[in-house]
Amino acid sequence: MIRLLFTVCNILFSFALFAQNEDSILIRRIADDVLVNGTAYSNLHTLTKKVGGRLTGSPQMYKAEAWGEQALKDAGADKVFLQACNVPRWVRDGKDEARLIEGGKEESMYVLALGNSVGTGAKGITAPVIQVNSFDELEQKKDEIKGKIVFYNYPFNPKFIETFRGYADAVRYRGGGASRAAKYGAVAVLVRSITNSTDNFPHTGAMRYDNANPKIPALAVGLLDADKLADAIRKNNGVKVFVKTNAHTLSDTLGHNVIGELTGTEFPDQYITVGGHLDSWDPAEGAHDDGAGCVHAIEVLRSLKATGYKPKHTIRVVLFADEENRGDGGTKYAEEAKAKNEKHIFGLESDAGGFTPRSFSFMIPKEKAEIIRGNWIPLLQPYGVYQFTIGFAGADVEPLNAALGTPAAELNPDSQRYFDYHHSPNDVFENVNKRELELGAINMAALIYLVDKYGL
Amino acid sequence: MIRLLFTVCNILFSFALFAQNEDSILIRRIADDVLVNGTAYSNLHTLTKKVGGRLTGSPQMYKAEAWGEQALKDAGADKVFLQACNVPRWVRDGKDEARLIEGGKEESMYVLALGNSVGTGAKGITAPVIQVNSFDELEQKKDEIKGKIVFYNYPFNPKFIETFRGYADAVRYRGGGASRAAKYGAVAVLVRSITNSTDNFPHTGAMRYDNANPKIPALAVGLLDADKLADAIRKNNGVKVFVKTNAHTLSDTLGHNVIGELTGTEFPDQYITVGGHLDSWDPAEGAHDDGAGCVHAIEVLRSLKATGYKPKHTIRVVLFADEENRGDGGTKYAEEAKAKNEKHIFGLESDAGGFTPRSFSFMIPKEKAEIIRGNWIPLLQPYGVYQFTIGFAGADVEPLNAALGTPAAELNPDSQRYFDYHHSPNDVFENVNKRELELGAINMAALIYLVDKYGL
Repeated sequence: MIRLLFTVCNILFSFALFAQNEDSILIRRIADDVLVNGTAYSNLHTLTKKVGGRLTGSPQMYKAEAWGEQALKDAGADKVFLQACNVPRWVRDGKDEARLIEGGKEESMYVLALGNSVGTGAKGITAPVIQVNSFDELEQKKDEIKGKIVFYNYPFNPKFIETFRGYADAVRYRGGGASRAAKYGAVAVLVRSITNSTDNFPHTGAMRYDNANPKIPALAVGLLDADKLADAIRKNNGVKVFVKTNAHTLSDTLGHNVIGELTGTEFPDQYITVGGHLDSWDPAEGAHDDGAGCVHAIEVLRSLKATGYKPKHTIRVVLFADEENRGDGGTKYAEEAKAKNEKHIFGLESDAGGFTPRSFSFMIPKEKAEIIRGNWIPLLQPYGVYQFTIGFAGADVEPLNAALGTPAAELNPDSQRYFDYHHSPNDVFENVNKRELELGAINMAALIYLVDKYGL
Repeated sequence: MIRLLFTVCNILFSFALFAQNEDSILIRRIADDVLVNGTAYSNLHTLTKKVGGRLTGSPQMYKAEAWGEQALKDAGADKVFLQACNVPRWVRDGKDEARLIEGGKEESMYVLALGNSVGTGAKGITAPVIQVNSFDELEQKKDEIKGKIVFYNYPFNPKFIETFRGYADAVRYRGGGASRAAKYGAVAVLVRSITNSTDNFPHTGAMRYDNANPKIPALAVGLLDADKLADAIRKNNGVKVFVKTNAHTLSDTLGHNVIGELTGTEFPDQYITVGGHLDSWDPAEGAHDDGAGCVHAIEVLRSLKATGYKPKHTIRVVLFADEENRGDGGTKYAEEAKAKNEKHIFGLESDAGGFTPRSFSFMIPKEKAEIIRGNWIPLLQPYGVYQFTIGFAGADVEPLNAALGTPAAELNPDSQRYFDYHHSPNDVFENVNKRELELGAINMAALIYLVDKYGL
């Protein structure tokens, strides 16, 4: 028995070694192909430099969709198609302005209207400014707010090692600050940019109004100017600010999820989705957010095809419409999947930048995570991913998880530089490193391969 | 018995938990202090912008030493002193030049003389150029070399995930290419820059001559120009190149290791060394190489002091002289430690850039590595270091390991961007990210704390 058991164990062990070996060889081939023949970086160059900023609903959105269709065809997709969805059409319409007015002197500040903000009217708004560092302080000062511009000066907390936690902590002032201040009669809000950068670029991003209060303009201000404004307020109670933005919202229009498929050999009607979002804020090239995610997803398809891998399930690359303004692309994709009763095996997205990869965050049961952690981390670690966590899997694949229970995941690159660029005019191609971008694609392609082969 | 054993286990377990907790609390305090009050970034700004490039033996070397003394005092060192050592004095002496000459047209190429290279004479050298992609090809073409400029066009292999492996693979052409070519009568060599960058900056670095062959000038050429030259050679056999450099070597001079100490409370005559090297190549600011390492080491001292930690052993920050040209600083430090019969507990260095940390590489026995891996990785992982490897521990602390058997280690940050900047004019402050730099210092301070407390 012992001998037999020994033999059986030996066979099992050899088989495991063989499988392991086959996987590591295939992943190595994917990696070599991405690092030598990869098109993620050149695709990102075209998207950022020929299309540029691509605000949801803008003419550039359609240009980006056409780019995506062609890039998917070039990558070797068996089938490329568009999935229409209603998207909002918020427009900035010119240059946003702000000036600090103090003792007869005026000094311009670097600002950007927040996404979905209303405008100030052609003459702009000039009003005394009142600084609050938190919603608590807003409540304390509620009787002093009327007729003023509220300046939310809540700083990005540097103590969070994962910068997304600092973002999550601060974003409520951008998101809900305008309505909270309007409740007490504020005429506009300025929000300290949600960034830990050392420069003065303002960082825009979506805000929302509640229905209970007047809609007042909301603008982000760069950190150096925010500090200057705080300084002026500290020294002098008579500080005024002038703000002007022509931002406004037009009626909805039709946008598209751009989809490319590698048809599955065994289960062509079972889908593995991998995507990024095609839209970006307008004053930037959307290189990290989320050009990187788009070219990552396209590179997954290209590299699997280039290495001759025949997926069992259909691999679907989705370049999602409108993640930034209202999240319509991801919602639409999940709705249609549900309506058509499609079987979805897995959804993976990349929407945290083209930085060096560290981990994947999964929406799956803990026990499942333990199993794949033990089996797959050793295969990915040589390429940078050393950790699987349980958590949010990104705004575009989360609806698939919510609607169909599809296991979902997101690539988590190193987060230290992300908020230097996020939603800001310096989110440009030049701030993306070729190899860091490529390593993201390698780890994503490897994960898609493993899920296709072993399930999840 | 069972009950007793249970109690004993419980006590041990609680104690372990308590110790673990005490460590994680102290490391959290270090991290908070570095992220909120840290001076690594501002120190690096001063070093790179007020001192700038600081070639061994140059006037800037002395300026850098004075900066280091002051920075260590400001960081709270109990004692700051200089340790003198002979250092070489290679000088570039003006701008290096090169031109591609083809069919009556001349086009300038972006080049830098390699460190320790001889000059060309005032008129420069014009000669036909012959390309070789390897030493094997040099041997095959040995009869065609005489009177020519040899162009080593060996590419940086992108398939190595750790870029230092690509560097190790390619650096032999920079280091020994000149003498190998001189053996067959070459009059100069051009070496493809050892980088995986997408730009044209040339990357210098040390070369050496053997004594058997004539000393001929050696220059690095930027990648775009290297490709252009290769292209021209492919199309036309009559390509010539003009090179000119005034590089030459003066007599040795006196440089210094700059040393700052936090005196140990229990074992003041037992040392833990933490350092980076103060010298850099001249055409750059030496921001990543190795300004980052210097400010890392200073920040270790500052943050331990600022959090009120009283080290048992004396913590010595060493800003090593001359790592780049001949490695004199590290050698001298080990020699003196041996001569004085000092007891050295541990040596740690940072000389791989100010990028986001991933691991430490140790020169210690495997069994010891296993133990500290299990105990310490959970404490460091929240700050980025998830791996301890066995390997080389850096050029400046390795001599301590060789001379005294001192356990040694090196910080391994993410390596993807390192060779974009290494030894090149774009190794500037602007290419260092504040938080990535700070995370390196946090992990180093935590490791020094753990070694001081638990030994190694």
